[in-house]
Amino acid sequence: MTSIYRPECSNAKRPLTFEIMAQDEKGEASRLFIAGENPLTLYIDKQEIVTLMTLGQCPEALAIGYLRNQRLIEHVEDLVSVQVDWEVNACAITTRKGIRNLSARLAKRTVTTGCGQGTVFGNLMEEIDSIHLPPEARLTESVLLSLLDNMRTHETIYKQAGAVHGCALTDNLGQILIYVEDVGRHNAVDAIAGQMWLDRLQPEDKIFYTTGRLTSEMVIKCAQMGIPFLVSRSGLTQMGYEIACQVGITLFGRAHGRHYLLFHGEDRFIRDALPS
Amino acid sequence: MTSIYRPECSNAKRPLTFEIMAQDEKGEASRLFIAGENPLTLYIDKQEIVTLMTLGQCPEALAIGYLRNQRLIEHVEDLVSVQVDWEVNACAITTRKGIRNLSARLAKRTVTTGCGQGTVFGNLMEEIDSIHLPPEARLTESVLLSLLDNMRTHETIYKQAGAVHGCALTDNLGQILIYVEDVGRHNAVDAIAGQMWLDRLQPEDKIFYTTGRLTSEMVIKCAQMGIPFLVSRSGLTQMGYEIACQVGITLFGRAHGRHYLLFHGEDRFIRDALPS
Repeated sequence: MTSIYRPECSNAKRPLTFEIMAQDEKGEASRLFIAGENPLTLYIDKQEIVTLMTLGQCPEALAIGYLRNQRLIEHVEDLVSVQVDWEVNACAITTRKGIRNLSARLAKRTVTTGCGQGTVFGNLMEEIDSIHLPPEARLTESVLLSLLDNMRTHETIYKQAGAVHGCALTDNLGQILIYVEDVGRHNAVDAIAGQMWLDRLQPEDKIFYTTGRLTSEMVIKCAQMGIPFLVSRSGLTQMGYEIACQVGITLFGRAHGRHYLLFHGEDRFIRDALPS
Repeated sequence: MTSIYRPECSNAKRPLTFEIMAQDEKGEASRLFIAGENPLTLYIDKQEIVTLMTLGQCPEALAIGYLRNQRLIEHVEDLVSVQVDWEVNACAITTRKGIRNLSARLAKRTVTTGCGQGTVFGNLMEEIDSIHLPPEARLTESVLLSLLDNMRTHETIYKQAGAVHGCALTDNLGQILIYVEDVGRHNAVDAIAGQMWLDRLQPEDKIFYTTGRLTSEMVIKCAQMGIPFLVSRSGLTQMGYEIACQVGITLFGRAHGRHYLLFHGEDRFIRDALPS
């Protein structure tokens, strides 16, 4: 077994839920759990980049995936260390050679920040034409249904506390490889992108699942990660749909239990399941 | 009746839903509606500020509310005109006197961008101590239940197409004054802030309703707008809760039908409803 390079990472998971008291409609005290939310400021080679609000389930993977999806670093090997310190809500990232034109790229970022007031948009759109998803990848309906069953039975913060979105990467049998929840939909996607880099997971036969909506940025990020299958429990927006058609991703929405809608990319989908 | 000043605004609403075809789990073609999503780039006095992804229901109010909530303008009177042109996905904002230190403030923004990878955060937090919500405001349970009933029966894009969040401002009887939906939760809040400015709606006896989760930024923005009551159909995060306690807002979650949880601020709440 060959050993793979890993930047030196802390393992600074936060408490994920907190217990509070509330009053219900009968005026009775009710004990419940709520999801954590923490500011995490990223510093690359001591320069402040951004503050993310995160559940804190896997802050190192989130930081790495954020840099990956923002195209600030090109290879995981460019990273020396990723150290999260919750005493000061900071993540210190050390790179091997610095980042060229960092200030200029951050300035550009300011003016293209978008997506429901979310992350970088302009640059992502420019890359659409360079995305090529494998046409030969296949997903059977029985694997899709098995994936949905795995999601249903997976233990989640959402079930305990609500107020978070979940994203998962599965193998081509629908088995969960990574499951991340976060208060921000895009954080969960970025954390998966980071973990895929750390574990050297190849995208071309994987399936990406999200509890969140299929907006433009969700579809773009998944396509950019090279994953040909995107499945959501929720709905779709017009730009999410248009981009899916443009990049040729196989896209499912409203997927739960034995129900789903196939929005695009039926060439990769094989209906093999028996009627229930 | 005194006439109030209004900047010269376009009225450039976008088509809100689009019809597409999908295949359901039986392999049958299914016709459905999906929500629109459009990039809208804001320019202040010809300088590019940000690109928001929006449903486009009320882009002028969104632009104004964005500038208000980002503290880029202090009074609606500072605005001369707000012109949206969907041919180029641009919103041109003309101010009376320009914005002092705009470049410096945008640079500051870059590094504090946060909240689920959302909007400005650092500056908002700094203002918490200056927020004073009226202690004498009151909300009765019967008004709360009437508000929830109004939300349930309100015609929405969500019912037709999903994939959007809704926010509403109601009067102290729970009657809807403004209802905005958007693909981004924060856009809907900002659009309400903008419309409140345009209509000179005072906040101190109003109720803010959202279908979205009560994260830190949602609670901060509502408090900053001076609204003492915040009601959500969804859950709460830890920072949302902490900020609610800090600013003393009256906060309800999981509110639908006749159910709700009162998280904070019971001094303003009067239980007058008869058991159903």
